[in-house]
Amino acid sequence: MLKVQFCEIIMVQLAEARRQKFALRICDELKAQIEAGTLTPGGLLPSTRALAAELGVSRTTVTEAYEQLLAEGFIETRPGAAARVSSSLGPSASPRARHPCEPSRVRLSAYGRRVRDFPPPPLVTGRLLADFRYGDMSAGDFPALAWRRVLNSVIARRPQRLRYGDAAGAPELRAALQAYLWRARHLRCDLEQIIVVNGSQQGLDLCARVLLDAGDRFVIEDPCYAIARQIFLSVGAVPVSIAADDEGLQTARLDKIADARACYVTPSHQFPLGGVLSAGRRQQLLAWARRTGACIIEDDYDSEYRFDIGPIRPLQTMSEGASVIYLGTVSKTLSPALRLGYLVVPSAMIDVFTAAKRLADRHTPTLDQQALAELIASGAYERHVRRARRRNAQRRAALLEAISVRLGDAATIVGSDAGLHVVVWLNDISPDREADVIACAQAGGIGIYPITPLYGSSSARDRRNCAGLVMGYAALDERDIRRGVERLAAILREFAS
Amino acid sequence: MLKVQFCEIIMVQLAEARRQKFALRICDELKAQIEAGTLTPGGLLPSTRALAAELGVSRTTVTEAYEQLLAEGFIETRPGAAARVSSSLGPSASPRARHPCEPSRVRLSAYGRRVRDFPPPPLVTGRLLADFRYGDMSAGDFPALAWRRVLNSVIARRPQRLRYGDAAGAPELRAALQAYLWRARHLRCDLEQIIVVNGSQQGLDLCARVLLDAGDRFVIEDPCYAIARQIFLSVGAVPVSIAADDEGLQTARLDKIADARACYVTPSHQFPLGGVLSAGRRQQLLAWARRTGACIIEDDYDSEYRFDIGPIRPLQTMSEGASVIYLGTVSKTLSPALRLGYLVVPSAMIDVFTAAKRLADRHTPTLDQQALAELIASGAYERHVRRARRRNAQRRAALLEAISVRLGDAATIVGSDAGLHVVVWLNDISPDREADVIACAQAGGIGIYPITPLYGSSSARDRRNCAGLVMGYAALDERDIRRGVERLAAILREFAS
Repeated sequence: MLKVQFCEIIMVQLAEARRQKFALRICDELKAQIEAGTLTPGGLLPSTRALAAELGVSRTTVTEAYEQLLAEGFIETRPGAAARVSSSLGPSASPRARHPCEPSRVRLSAYGRRVRDFPPPPLVTGRLLADFRYGDMSAGDFPALAWRRVLNSVIARRPQRLRYGDAAGAPELRAALQAYLWRARHLRCDLEQIIVVNGSQQGLDLCARVLLDAGDRFVIEDPCYAIARQIFLSVGAVPVSIAADDEGLQTARLDKIADARACYVTPSHQFPLGGVLSAGRRQQLLAWARRTGACIIEDDYDSEYRFDIGPIRPLQTMSEGASVIYLGTVSKTLSPALRLGYLVVPSAMIDVFTAAKRLADRHTPTLDQQALAELIASGAYERHVRRARRRNAQRRAALLEAISVRLGDAATIVGSDAGLHVVVWLNDISPDREADVIACAQAGGIGIYPITPLYGSSSARDRRNCAGLVMGYAALDERDIRRGVERLAAILREFAS
Repeated sequence: MLKVQFCEIIMVQLAEARRQKFALRICDELKAQIEAGTLTPGGLLPSTRALAAELGVSRTTVTEAYEQLLAEGFIETRPGAAARVSSSLGPSASPRARHPCEPSRVRLSAYGRRVRDFPPPPLVTGRLLADFRYGDMSAGDFPALAWRRVLNSVIARRPQRLRYGDAAGAPELRAALQAYLWRARHLRCDLEQIIVVNGSQQGLDLCARVLLDAGDRFVIEDPCYAIARQIFLSVGAVPVSIAADDEGLQTARLDKIADARACYVTPSHQFPLGGVLSAGRRQQLLAWARRTGACIIEDDYDSEYRFDIGPIRPLQTMSEGASVIYLGTVSKTLSPALRLGYLVVPSAMIDVFTAAKRLADRHTPTLDQQALAELIASGAYERHVRRARRRNAQRRAALLEAISVRLGDAATIVGSDAGLHVVVWLNDISPDREADVIACAQAGGIGIYPITPLYGSSSARDRRNCAGLVMGYAALDERDIRRGVERLAAILREFAS
């Protein structure tokens, strides 16, 4: 009897000791995580119940560990709320996985190997006095109130159930875009031809996947949007670069190319040189596409912005007998961060693009699509576009004037009729000093970006024997534009001498 | 002198006549568009200025056309506002492109040909009394107020400029997910290993592209999520189907497979059969992956929902020496329409997945990412998940009870320990009548979905010699679940006899 009692006491003591040991281990583990930064100051801890279940110990054990951490000031608790890491703790080293699962042999696909080796986009470096990065937009231009209003209205309008949407896009957005494209671009299409995508980028990726096999040839403007070239290269296709000049793609050179499967063009505003594809060249391009069966991918990325010229009709509107895929986006009118764009595809390709989009990510987020539909249908979108056009006309005028005043004959501006950027040729500086100019300007607080990486061939680049910049202005106000160009001029003077 | 005057008069008259003719043509064109439905009642017309510029005519001409349309009641105008199509006009035929640009020869890539021929997902047919479609969620469960609050707060918090975000995801969301994954799944990783994607679908697509070339073999559970199999097939990879049973993938069968490059598994809750991969099989699977260098893709699609069992640790947490890509989503906790998910990739693959995501669509929409980050960091996400778990436990109980009461021995339920669906085997109905059962039930107002299309091989399907259903319950309330099963039971009685 005595012995049994003794045993029980021993067992209880053992259990208690084990519990304490576990509690201590949990305590150490949590401290290590806090120190490593996996748990950050103010961050939530798991509930005692969840952690107990997770670790297979009693809740008392976890509670004990938490009390210890509380006593040591690592965590803080409030009645009824989950425990948190003490917000008074300083920031720690960046969080690290404890068991970095470094696999010995990761064999990538051909696609994987290609994309891994593409040069990443140029780095954004700290705060700059003026950053002329192309593609950025001013946050002040974004219609935040209107966007909040339409978003709130679509969230409030609850559907019966939440489910995957139509892969090709929300019907209300496709209808709004159909009407908008007619109003703004005189482009007429069936609703079914419109495929909503996550920005032009996804539109191009779908085109590349659906149209091109490894080894297929595609025609691309030279110079061009670097990431577009990367997308086509990523599927293993082979570029046929054709130089662009002031009138866009030099279509006469297409005659010799019979076996290309696709042709990527920016006819409204050649990127980056800014030429508008002339009427004669449009006819040549379409005739070539009809003759060879190549599919034209028309990227209409910034057609909302044109300044001293009339509107330019998309190729798509004159494409009878040719396959033209039209590509639009709101990245230049609302925000690049929204990721909303659309394709208008030939009727024969509706099914394959819908299937490809479904496999890529089911569909574009529904709330965002519905919000854009409401913005367009209410007329607020086009009012906003008109406002944005006026604002950017002011910025453009400030930039052109500043360059003319500060740089004079040292600079030649091209492509300023349309879009949100210009190309500035630095007449007195040789191309091989371009990278130095960029680096010095960045060191001096001016973000400028080189044109050379946008060229696919040195023969096209050699047509201009001087350094060149692609300067975007949509994110800057006029004062910063003027100050930026002034500072840039001072930096360039040292190079010209 | 007289002659000159006469000429001028003639010319003015001619010009006037031409103007009227143009105005009439514009008028006819607009009427045709209204009749075709390209312009819908209440829809905006282009401004007279824009249309004049577009057509290369004077603004007066367009104004005249608009006045004519106004007089005929086709359009309505208000001072200071854009003209609109009369909202009193009835709906017209669906809008059609006037020049359907049917290209004669559209040659698709191998990828394009494969995806075009995949069977589309089962059609949603009209209003049903009870729709047991798997993947749908109740709109009533969505935390609309909380989502609106976080969205409004991120819109209000304007950044300095709008620009493309980090391809791998917004830093605040990756930090929130890192902490969440540790709290909820005991998964510890570096922030850099987390790649934010547009739902699991995009995660799988990136995995397929980065890991598999055409002709490569991949292991997949049989039966499995149909669209996952499609994704791997789309890149031309060759499936090696391995049967799943009550304990998930039958890993013993892996021994004979030395050359597979990837293995897609749902270890927490096998889809669709619902088994939990047992501890022994987990070890076998990981050992195989270490030995062969195959990459495991762990789809943790609904791990938030488990009912009578303890939490199941992801494979990723025990993966030292093996390559495991972990895949999570908010489609089952918030809404499938949001399109938000995440990968946790081995450190050696961070660069390639970041590059692939950048090329696929630059990044996931920034506002949505920031909103989710705030929801998680505030604790509101986990409170919501707990609520959703309670609600779905009630639905599950109602479904299990109703099936037991109404179908009794005629049905066997499997996989109800976790997730938001069960598999119901109809013991008395042969597999070849499955499609008939589905069709009859749908005609009777009950949406049910067959298990057979989820099988990759007939040998795996033959293990159960009866019809089977995949029944989701997360979108229904208990009353509809009970009524739906009652109606279903009545329909099935006719089949069993």
